[in-house]
Amino acid sequence: MKLQTSKRLALKTLKGFRDFLPEKMAIRQEVIRRLKNVFETYGFEELQTPALEYAEVLKGKYGEDAEKLMYLFKDQGDREVGLRYDLTVPFARVMASYQDLPKPFKRYQIQPAYRAENTQKGRYREFYQCDVDIVGSTSPLSDAEILGVINDALTSLEFPSFKIKVNSRQVLFTIIENAGIEKGLALSVIRSIDKLDKKSKEEVEQELKEKGLSQEKISKIFDPTLARGLDYYTGPIFETQVEEPKIGSVTGGGRYNQLLKTLGGPDLPATGTTIGLDRICDVIEELNLWNLPKTKVQVLVAVLDPKFINESLKVAQTLRERFVTVEVYPDENTKLDKQLKYADQKGVPFVLIIGEDEAKENKVTLKNMETGEQETLTLEGTLNRVKS
Amino acid sequence: MKLQTSKRLALKTLKGFRDFLPEKMAIRQEVIRRLKNVFETYGFEELQTPALEYAEVLKGKYGEDAEKLMYLFKDQGDREVGLRYDLTVPFARVMASYQDLPKPFKRYQIQPAYRAENTQKGRYREFYQCDVDIVGSTSPLSDAEILGVINDALTSLEFPSFKIKVNSRQVLFTIIENAGIEKGLALSVIRSIDKLDKKSKEEVEQELKEKGLSQEKISKIFDPTLARGLDYYTGPIFETQVEEPKIGSVTGGGRYNQLLKTLGGPDLPATGTTIGLDRICDVIEELNLWNLPKTKVQVLVAVLDPKFINESLKVAQTLRERFVTVEVYPDENTKLDKQLKYADQKGVPFVLIIGEDEAKENKVTLKNMETGEQETLTLEGTLNRVKS
Repeated sequence: MKLQTSKRLALKTLKGFRDFLPEKMAIRQEVIRRLKNVFETYGFEELQTPALEYAEVLKGKYGEDAEKLMYLFKDQGDREVGLRYDLTVPFARVMASYQDLPKPFKRYQIQPAYRAENTQKGRYREFYQCDVDIVGSTSPLSDAEILGVINDALTSLEFPSFKIKVNSRQVLFTIIENAGIEKGLALSVIRSIDKLDKKSKEEVEQELKEKGLSQEKISKIFDPTLARGLDYYTGPIFETQVEEPKIGSVTGGGRYNQLLKTLGGPDLPATGTTIGLDRICDVIEELNLWNLPKTKVQVLVAVLDPKFINESLKVAQTLRERFVTVEVYPDENTKLDKQLKYADQKGVPFVLIIGEDEAKENKVTLKNMETGEQETLTLEGTLNRVKS
Repeated sequence: MKLQTSKRLALKTLKGFRDFLPEKMAIRQEVIRRLKNVFETYGFEELQTPALEYAEVLKGKYGEDAEKLMYLFKDQGDREVGLRYDLTVPFARVMASYQDLPKPFKRYQIQPAYRAENTQKGRYREFYQCDVDIVGSTSPLSDAEILGVINDALTSLEFPSFKIKVNSRQVLFTIIENAGIEKGLALSVIRSIDKLDKKSKEEVEQELKEKGLSQEKISKIFDPTLARGLDYYTGPIFETQVEEPKIGSVTGGGRYNQLLKTLGGPDLPATGTTIGLDRICDVIEELNLWNLPKTKVQVLVAVLDPKFINESLKVAQTLRERFVTVEVYPDENTKLDKQLKYADQKGVPFVLIIGEDEAKENKVTLKNMETGEQETLTLEGTLNRVKS
């Protein structure tokens, strides 16, 4: 790599893209850690696919409007390529590519997707998707496992009150049929009903009237609270509403027995859910739902006198071996005041100091940054204090 | 989303890109988990930057040859954009964007980078980079922290024998100066010396002769075993050779006090290292260095009689609450033989069965898949057996 002298960097991320600085990352890491843990407790295993796919894998799957949002371009070999638009199409490609994967196949996948969305709506152009799916079983038992995962996931994220809504495409179709509505209109009617969480009952009724339904027919079908407009569900459909804090829908999914085949993959039944990872992380951060410590560092070892750096490094190493998170202040020429301020800014709870007296007695001075108290302790005493 | 009927999916990933199926992911997850743990024990915090940056952030930083490998294109807003080429330039942009980040700033970053490399060399076009850096301190203490991280990282990855080579740009320059070689040639000479791990001593000597050095001068400088050709190091340089198994260099780094400024970022000293994550994962997989279980699932609950599905689901839930990883076979219409074969294929060590007798006695039958033994146990007994 040849070094280039360069003009000042553009200071901004690209429109619709964002940096995750450590404080923001801490929440994301913890959300992902808890979700993965639940998925794995249910026997789901992680899958990752490349950010770039052949454009032909992506195109013709989502409709024309979606295609306008796709990042499509030509690579150096003049191949038509595109950035991942969601996780479902790459997953269908994987199921098509590796036909000998043991079935039922249970995978989860947490990766960013890319859509040139209208950023005015507060949407990001790089956003994480989190999908959990079972492929190869038509049994309601696999739908039940997905519901179990959703329940345990939301519980592990400490949402005090949420409702998992379950409905069934078959039930909806039967209701519509029994109301005497012609079959060809069924999907269109479901799409209108699905707008009930955004529009008023009157508005949706008006929409149905415009679609040609009589008031009598409308009253017969006007109850189901979960319809999910997506055309590809074939059986049960599920959605989770977090009620406290009131943040709305955070998961959506259902059974999609035709989708993999329709996307060009194998003819296998499937059921699963998407979990709104970005939304969950943003809400936990904005509403300050978790009382995460500002930093994982438990002890900052301050360094003062170059003579005692060796002792300081040794103590740091010993504490690390005992699973304490220790940062050594990386500059011995900085005044103690400034080192303490650094610990305070980062939220480190303890500062450890070794000077002449401490070195002589084989002890350390430990300052509690919250109370301001200072104690001279042995290493064992330090361990006890830090861990308590 | 409107459903599109589509032709068969292209079955392949794009040239130079790869899927990570669960078995491959398990190793990557574990490597990343251990590395993150070490970084955080030293007080490094995670940073993530977007996959796409303005092209002007990327261009003019790495030289013309590198720019040919960049994925550059125009987005929907006619902006010139590009995929992340490494983690250093985005990091410099972050340091420039958020000038009030507390210093010293210690971050780690694990994200894919994109280069349209010649795939014949076995290189991937999407590959993970893993960087650990301290910005804002000129003290050797911060270099020492990086060395500590490298040592603990390689130890935690269970490499039985590795050597961290440390050298110093300053020492190299002094040696070259003392040999009577003119200053302008110094970097070029270092680049030649750095080839010693790939070329023979004779070949490198020949190269130096061609650069105009006499045999006498060559013999005076011909010792340093670590030179690192990169032009941007300004002080100590480090590299780790794993000696057992013999897989060569897995980390590289050093002090780069000018680089952030040269890249258009702030004028701050820095030191750090790259860890060759993909290489490490591939080697652990290929040489089968770790004896990771094939799956994290400990128990497969087989389902036979629809009458006892409730009991089976309850037992699964109870075991999960006790931190056992349990998969319920998601189809009650599958013969036991096939369910056992599934457990065997996935490497699940225990299969749990509840039939009429077990349900009556409030017990379960537990089959050890390795020995083939079956026992009828209480729930507590099952827990003990699985955890032992």
